[in-house]
Amino acid sequence: MSDPRPIGVFDSGVGGLTVLREILRRSPHESTIYLGDNARAPYGVRTDAEVLRFSMEALDELASRDVKAIVVACNTSTAVALRQLRARYALPVLGVVRPGAAAAALATRNRRVGVIATPATVRSHAYFNAIKDENPAVEVYEHATPRFVPMVEAGILGGDELEAMVLEELAPLLGERDGAGEFVFPRPPSAKIDTLLLGCTHYPLLRPILAAAVGDRVAIVDSATATSATLAELLSVNGLEAPGTTRGTAADPGAAGHSRPSEVYGAPPTHRQLTTGDVALFRSIASRMFGEAFPDIDPVTLRELD
Amino acid sequence: MSDPRPIGVFDSGVGGLTVLREILRRSPHESTIYLGDNARAPYGVRTDAEVLRFSMEALDELASRDVKAIVVACNTSTAVALRQLRARYALPVLGVVRPGAAAAALATRNRRVGVIATPATVRSHAYFNAIKDENPAVEVYEHATPRFVPMVEAGILGGDELEAMVLEELAPLLGERDGAGEFVFPRPPSAKIDTLLLGCTHYPLLRPILAAAVGDRVAIVDSATATSATLAELLSVNGLEAPGTTRGTAADPGAAGHSRPSEVYGAPPTHRQLTTGDVALFRSIASRMFGEAFPDIDPVTLRELD
Repeated sequence: MSDPRPIGVFDSGVGGLTVLREILRRSPHESTIYLGDNARAPYGVRTDAEVLRFSMEALDELASRDVKAIVVACNTSTAVALRQLRARYALPVLGVVRPGAAAAALATRNRRVGVIATPATVRSHAYFNAIKDENPAVEVYEHATPRFVPMVEAGILGGDELEAMVLEELAPLLGERDGAGEFVFPRPPSAKIDTLLLGCTHYPLLRPILAAAVGDRVAIVDSATATSATLAELLSVNGLEAPGTTRGTAADPGAAGHSRPSEVYGAPPTHRQLTTGDVALFRSIASRMFGEAFPDIDPVTLRELD
Repeated sequence: MSDPRPIGVFDSGVGGLTVLREILRRSPHESTIYLGDNARAPYGVRTDAEVLRFSMEALDELASRDVKAIVVACNTSTAVALRQLRARYALPVLGVVRPGAAAAALATRNRRVGVIATPATVRSHAYFNAIKDENPAVEVYEHATPRFVPMVEAGILGGDELEAMVLEELAPLLGERDGAGEFVFPRPPSAKIDTLLLGCTHYPLLRPILAAAVGDRVAIVDSATATSATLAELLSVNGLEAPGTTRGTAADPGAAGHSRPSEVYGAPPTHRQLTTGDVALFRSIASRMFGEAFPDIDPVTLRELD
């Protein structure tokens, strides 16, 4: 069982490219189509009805391009619209909230998880609820960090200024450092979290500076990586993997060796990025964020729903 | 979209009951049928051909009982037979290896993961390969701990004798404690793991004593919990959740309130356990392990394949 069709990845803007990057890393045989609704981003300031309609328009476009599964790589859209989107398409539709929440609930030892996200995502309490779904005994501390996205989109991923900002923004979650460099908690909620969930698709790009800030006693889990792992499992369970997908487990040690190359490898994967906004602007922001060229970006116009 | 049919859970013996328990905790609206092939357990001493045939016979039985999805809650069967089992049934078939491996790869900060499992599972290198699939940069240290399963099946989940055994068995993964109680590593592989994956379905019952042994700097991830999280996501994405499944996320805050109770809650879930072995023996081992009664156990005879 295999399926060469591409995976659709949808985001309101460029942040979902971190999810795309993790999908390419985790599942290198898969083809992808990324759709950024940059013309109407960010969704965090939109009403729920708008987010739902915009998301349906975007997924209609991806579905019309014969994708085999869709990843909603937008926290706002996942929080507001995932259930309705799943009902609308006869395709597996995966969000970014639950995979990250499950990974954080599994990683924590002291059952205290911090979540950083945009103000809109924090207001939706999507991560709080999803972590409680996994394990109601986990205490969840959500914290909005609105200053990170502009830094990431400007390509500022390190340096003294960002470092100071990170420590300032995380202080409510981590407390303050004492003379010995340990975090102390002068006031409630005095949660000594041991796991930090990155609940915004931009934040994986800040992982090194966040890891340095929280220290090695705090696990960092990001939704982008967790979603790519869940997607790989979903494709496998549903028989949707691309031809040539490596099966590195002992379950199938000899498959590659006993098949003809054409059966094993299939056609090389293809990757396209579409934006409803300005192609040059998308390219320049994406290139700043990832430090690499994005050659295959095309404009797209979505068919509007009433 | 909802589906009231039960979830099938298969194990060679009683260990998979930890997976069943996590499924009941995570997805309390789901009905289940557990099948333990106790008459032929343990599978670790069987040939690959036997494991495959036994697994097919067991899953044929579950499939004949109209389950909507099957969890192979047996590490040996997952490692040996999962791919062929997936090809045999038009049902989602989930193993226990990849969910645990993905959770461990996400949880580690220093990219050093220890895996404890039975000798057969370690020999298969299923966890090594699955973790490398997630992230090739993670160093994986597999270690067989053959003395744990008999203790668990005897209902010995704590106490001085077990504590001493645990420290002895884990020494190759953790090193030895110095005067300050920190682990030191006198010899290679001197891996200071920060994540310990429980790669045997019996081991979650040892979690408290294992957690005390490894200390609070080491995250403990177990495949049973990880598999229940992955199953919940799979049911949701595939529209297979039981009627009345709580959707606690902000995506759907009002669904329960706006639906009629009969639509929301459906019939109460049912749970059956089947064993190919002795019912009284199954009951007594399961009751010792979990400290609770297992009233609904029935014998089953599997139809043999050629």
